[in-house]
Amino acid sequence: MLPGVGVFGTGSTARVLVPLLKAEGFDVHALWGRSEEEAGCLAKELGIPFHTSRSDDVLLHQEVDLVCIYIPPSMTRQIAVKALGIGKNVVCEKAATAVDSFKMVTAARYYPQLLSIMGNTLRFLPAFVAMRKLLVEGYVGELQVCDVRVYGPSLLDESYGWTCEELMGGGGLHTVGSAIIDLLSYLTGARAHRVHGLLRTFVQQNGLIRGIRRVTSDDFCFFQMLMGGSGSSSGGVCCTVTLNFNMPGSFVHEVMVVGSAGRLVARGTELYGQRNGSKGEELLLGDSGWVGPEVKEMPLPHLRGLSSMVKALRQSFQAHEERRSWARGPVAMAPTFEDGLYVQTVVEAVKRSSSSGEWECVEIMSQEPDPNHNLCEALQRNKN
Amino acid sequence: MLPGVGVFGTGSTARVLVPLLKAEGFDVHALWGRSEEEAGCLAKELGIPFHTSRSDDVLLHQEVDLVCIYIPPSMTRQIAVKALGIGKNVVCEKAATAVDSFKMVTAARYYPQLLSIMGNTLRFLPAFVAMRKLLVEGYVGELQVCDVRVYGPSLLDESYGWTCEELMGGGGLHTVGSAIIDLLSYLTGARAHRVHGLLRTFVQQNGLIRGIRRVTSDDFCFFQMLMGGSGSSSGGVCCTVTLNFNMPGSFVHEVMVVGSAGRLVARGTELYGQRNGSKGEELLLGDSGWVGPEVKEMPLPHLRGLSSMVKALRQSFQAHEERRSWARGPVAMAPTFEDGLYVQTVVEAVKRSSSSGEWECVEIMSQEPDPNHNLCEALQRNKN
Repeated sequence: MLPGVGVFGTGSTARVLVPLLKAEGFDVHALWGRSEEEAGCLAKELGIPFHTSRSDDVLLHQEVDLVCIYIPPSMTRQIAVKALGIGKNVVCEKAATAVDSFKMVTAARYYPQLLSIMGNTLRFLPAFVAMRKLLVEGYVGELQVCDVRVYGPSLLDESYGWTCEELMGGGGLHTVGSAIIDLLSYLTGARAHRVHGLLRTFVQQNGLIRGIRRVTSDDFCFFQMLMGGSGSSSGGVCCTVTLNFNMPGSFVHEVMVVGSAGRLVARGTELYGQRNGSKGEELLLGDSGWVGPEVKEMPLPHLRGLSSMVKALRQSFQAHEERRSWARGPVAMAPTFEDGLYVQTVVEAVKRSSSSGEWECVEIMSQEPDPNHNLCEALQRNKN
Repeated sequence: MLPGVGVFGTGSTARVLVPLLKAEGFDVHALWGRSEEEAGCLAKELGIPFHTSRSDDVLLHQEVDLVCIYIPPSMTRQIAVKALGIGKNVVCEKAATAVDSFKMVTAARYYPQLLSIMGNTLRFLPAFVAMRKLLVEGYVGELQVCDVRVYGPSLLDESYGWTCEELMGGGGLHTVGSAIIDLLSYLTGARAHRVHGLLRTFVQQNGLIRGIRRVTSDDFCFFQMLMGGSGSSSGGVCCTVTLNFNMPGSFVHEVMVVGSAGRLVARGTELYGQRNGSKGEELLLGDSGWVGPEVKEMPLPHLRGLSSMVKALRQSFQAHEERRSWARGPVAMAPTFEDGLYVQTVVEAVKRSSSSGEWECVEIMSQEPDPNHNLCEALQRNKN
């Protein structure tokens, strides 16, 4: 039996998610927005019976068994951890910091019977499912290089907000890079151990963000990851990722993997391949055309990935009679909160590398840092 | 009046160059090859009256006023410097090291009345001439990012040779990266002051190179250049270059420049552009089809670039009555030996960065290093 759903967020993802959930048979009972007005507007538009700006009203809602959290990164940890504590299943987007991600991991470990997955995923996109299968089957031989580029228009909201602020989780690396980092660990079956990166904010002000306000989040980001193998620099897979969000009117989403025997490339939602020795590229998986809701701000690969994830959620919950029970199988490929912590750790290592100019190691937090120590650091930073 | 030409080299470039020279009305009088046999074979094939394996026989040849040097990088400096000393005009490919490049610069400065240009150039390709013009005219606004990718099949010769050896000037960075580094300084009108890179040799042995022999030159290279501006990390243009020569059966040559108001991209020999706010890409310069000689090993952009350079050479020499005199105008855009030294310096900085893992400064040699010091270093290297 499908669980009742409560949705946090009134942004473009929430706006797409609700129709997708409904199409799969989920009942969306409650919507949270930062203001009563925002929540009310969207609830009316999407036909959701209850709306609020108080998070507890959704978390404690009797009919809500599954909470979907698509809100600014800096608020995610608080809601996600609380939802698990109240006994609700959670699908959420990334948090703003590794410390927050670590707290979410701790909560998820504490409630292993509850579903807790990262819901901003490209893993479910059929092109990447097929790519991973072909990689495992040896289509490209020994994997050498992954090369990813995402080009598109500005990620900034129309008014000043968290998307402009690096420390609030804004920027191309955090928003789009996260999904790519997760995808590459899914495709390669390995994790980055060293990273190098360069972040830039080319557009620091625009027609709407001006005066004393300045964008600090990156609109251009370029990073390399050395995956798997030992710490030696000669082994393992090289991943290179270029993100450029100064390209209005275009959208390029290309993921290429090159190995000793051939290569695979996903362009948008389609998969192509070429084996060494063959004359040309073959289309391995076409796109049958998208019939779901369209959102200008959301690129098709993310939209389709979201749609496939909602389908997997339906299968997971359908397997059981009890509203809150779910089967692991259909969502086994989803990124866990542990994956979320890994991704956030890589994001922070890339940022460190951009400041230091050096290769940085990816060291996953195994213990929560002393909050007093952090406070000291923050105070020291302010002094400079 | 056009000068008589002597050609050094029997590789794919020399094989293309001779017909191109003849088509423009140059007489090719002499050909040098490493063995009498190689030289004889190609001379017969291309209808060149004289061939030899002794370099002086070409350099001192009465009818030869212009020497074109397309030989392994480690031999280039010796021939080029000698040719200038004998009073011949020189077009040549890159040398193997910055020290060699510096010696060539010294010779070129000593004989300013002689033509001395680097002949492995993309600058002459009409798409890049048009791109530079549009950049100067402000098509993309303030330039932010250059993103270059070249993918293709292996650069190795069929048998073991200099192409396999990093120290002999083999590898993607030295062979193809050089042309890109030169092109980007031409397009941006600036030079790299800091670089970061990663080189890999994924294929160290193959069916023909085996046993104790091992390829040391890179087949994958990835580097970033910070161009122009001050040494500060916030200003200037970011260039990212990805070279991958583990992709048999494909050839991708894409140069994209992105600015505040739009972008330009050269795919192969065609130029496209899109201004912010416009709906789609426009074709700015198509390719009317190539009617010259075809060479499997030489990608079309390089072939067309070479062809345009030969045309410019013809114009340069045609302007004067005397066989050895030339006009600066038509070849003013050609890379000089000073440009060659800059390119070689960047190549070596990228290699250093790949070893050190750090950003490396590009410092152009202004004085020849003490040869004894080099000897000491070489001896020390051998000890390790």
